[in-house]
Amino acid sequence: MANGNMAIGQSGGPTAVINGSLLGAVEEALRHPSIGSVLGLVNGIEGALQENLLDLGRQPAPVLEGLYRTPASALGSCRRKLSPADHERILEVFRAHDIRYFLYIGGNDSMDTSLQIEALARAEGYDLQVIGIPKTIDNDLPRTDHCPGYGSVARWVAQSVMDIGRDLLSMRTFMQVYVLEVMGRNAGWIAAAASLADRPEGSLPLVLCLPEQPFDRAQFLERVARRHREFGCALVVTSEALRAADGSLVADEAAATVVDAFGHKVVYGVGDYLARMIARELGLKCRSDRPGTVQRAAMACVSPVDQAEAREAGRAAVRLALDGRSGEMVTLERVSDRPYRCTTGAAPFQEVANREKLIPPEYLVPFGVAPAFLEYAAPLIGGSLPDYVTLEPTLVPKRCKSL
Amino acid sequence: MANGNMAIGQSGGPTAVINGSLLGAVEEALRHPSIGSVLGLVNGIEGALQENLLDLGRQPAPVLEGLYRTPASALGSCRRKLSPADHERILEVFRAHDIRYFLYIGGNDSMDTSLQIEALARAEGYDLQVIGIPKTIDNDLPRTDHCPGYGSVARWVAQSVMDIGRDLLSMRTFMQVYVLEVMGRNAGWIAAAASLADRPEGSLPLVLCLPEQPFDRAQFLERVARRHREFGCALVVTSEALRAADGSLVADEAAATVVDAFGHKVVYGVGDYLARMIARELGLKCRSDRPGTVQRAAMACVSPVDQAEAREAGRAAVRLALDGRSGEMVTLERVSDRPYRCTTGAAPFQEVANREKLIPPEYLVPFGVAPAFLEYAAPLIGGSLPDYVTLEPTLVPKRCKSL
Repeated sequence: MANGNMAIGQSGGPTAVINGSLLGAVEEALRHPSIGSVLGLVNGIEGALQENLLDLGRQPAPVLEGLYRTPASALGSCRRKLSPADHERILEVFRAHDIRYFLYIGGNDSMDTSLQIEALARAEGYDLQVIGIPKTIDNDLPRTDHCPGYGSVARWVAQSVMDIGRDLLSMRTFMQVYVLEVMGRNAGWIAAAASLADRPEGSLPLVLCLPEQPFDRAQFLERVARRHREFGCALVVTSEALRAADGSLVADEAAATVVDAFGHKVVYGVGDYLARMIARELGLKCRSDRPGTVQRAAMACVSPVDQAEAREAGRAAVRLALDGRSGEMVTLERVSDRPYRCTTGAAPFQEVANREKLIPPEYLVPFGVAPAFLEYAAPLIGGSLPDYVTLEPTLVPKRCKSL
Repeated sequence: MANGNMAIGQSGGPTAVINGSLLGAVEEALRHPSIGSVLGLVNGIEGALQENLLDLGRQPAPVLEGLYRTPASALGSCRRKLSPADHERILEVFRAHDIRYFLYIGGNDSMDTSLQIEALARAEGYDLQVIGIPKTIDNDLPRTDHCPGYGSVARWVAQSVMDIGRDLLSMRTFMQVYVLEVMGRNAGWIAAAASLADRPEGSLPLVLCLPEQPFDRAQFLERVARRHREFGCALVVTSEALRAADGSLVADEAAATVVDAFGHKVVYGVGDYLARMIARELGLKCRSDRPGTVQRAAMACVSPVDQAEAREAGRAAVRLALDGRSGEMVTLERVSDRPYRCTTGAAPFQEVANREKLIPPEYLVPFGVAPAFLEYAAPLIGGSLPDYVTLEPTLVPKRCKSL
């Protein structure tokens, strides 16, 4: 006899593995007779407001299994700040469908939503267990070793920087600096993953710009110039926002004074901004790119470790709910680095909602990361990166006068 | 007894498979006793000017074999327009090293360089056979069915648009339009490959903007608005340059009137330009990205067909040279579509140098491609794209009043 039904939703920006968490939760829930129907909220909490629910237990088995290899949010997503009227409506719909378990897959904001719904149900005396499942490529949720979604974007960044590095090194005669702007506004975990591409260490002319480190223009230009002297080129990887020591956004310096053809202020990407600065101040040929969405959706670079952990986080959420727990988010707890082992735990919503975990100082060196970061991040990308070759550089003895 | 030595160089922007052509040429040349040493030009024709040569026959076998899976130009590349003084120097170095075969891997400009070197040697009575090996992600070389390098970037675009499409469809409640700017300045082959992602046909809200089609602002906005009505979102894929019916560059409209904080004219990416136009004119939330270099270097999306053809083009160049041919570029000749079969041929430099092959009109429909393009491009990406799932959309019967 079921205690009630379960609702599950996906929220915020998608990842390559968020559907793995959905699958994990659904498959675990369907194994337990104390859980009735497993209902998917279409477009996150908006599915509760609109009463748009899917019966996930009735999905064909190949569709459910296929979630593991399908990126983005299969249920649809939302970004909605709840109003008091929303609170009442959510409880009305939950009551109407006898929803007694609510699982929400999301990041900092979604954990705040979960916290509100849990508090409301308790205040109204409605018996509801709420469990959060972490999801964010930004890797900025506190209390968990890392977040499902991060390992795959880290793999994408590491592999892409390997590929771009090869491209740049081969074009040194006509291109000197490349700036790659990756995601991550306040936390630099994604940009830091570029360091995983530098194997053997020191083979890539990397310059990392992370929001945790105040941006100093003179030091930055000096570092780029040094890389250019050493390698004939430099590869800058920057988070999408950087701040000066006084806290001001770096690209605002340009954005504030540039107006487009239609009279609107243009907010530049920081990558384009750095590229223009380098071209102007150092006189080097420079290109910048902003890959954007593809980095968080690229199934060709998915981390198998991340996929498995996302699924396990979904399963763990159901187990927590069945243990009578509520008001907590599943966490990933690292047991050991070598061999890498990770298990699941739980943390109260209050300790994760609306908070950000930045890269700790001990993982950082100027314009780069310390070995401790590599130790932390390497297992998360799930296996080794490609093994590229480099031609032996010994030249044939010259027979002509040099030019 | 060898007739002389062979020199080989790589030129222009790299691809994911250009090293495969290098490998193919080297392995074929090493099999023939009539070819002496196989010398690699470091940084393309600049390696001849500087006399920077590698003896590729002395490279360790695992390094040579590893070229197949290593992106970018292992020998280094260049973009150099030859001067008369360069001509003399090149012949001096070729004579000094008894180079009697010259293979150049590159695109339109590189075939022009090859043409010049061939003509010069003939004029000077220096016995030299020159063969070109096609390479360009742009797929814009005439006389060849397609170019090595294109299949892999086409696979990257197709897979990325599948992934981005999923991401966008799942975010319809808070993001309506996504603009992806891909490479290709005059020819739209790369952007057109996005159509391969639309499987089953009509499942993605695609709007393609190709340089072959004059850009009409009103029609474009109407098409985006229509996609938004149909799908709740629109996914625009644009080449990096678009032209209005009068031939003027579309983004110049903004670029001409925008000056950055430092007094420099800013040339906007056309993707950012379209995104701002959509946000302003249609009032839709819009994001644009420019992945840039990664699209031509991404080994995670390499096409195995492209890899094999690149290698075969390298081998074919050596066979042409051994057959006494000169002044020609290897071509890929399609024998059949189903099953896909392709062989190699040759075309005179005069018919490929400095010319561009655009997408023919019969491959195009407004803001998209015709089935004939899909038939053309599908085999080049080398195997099927991922098989993602979609949840069955039947909703649970509602029990509450609608909002």
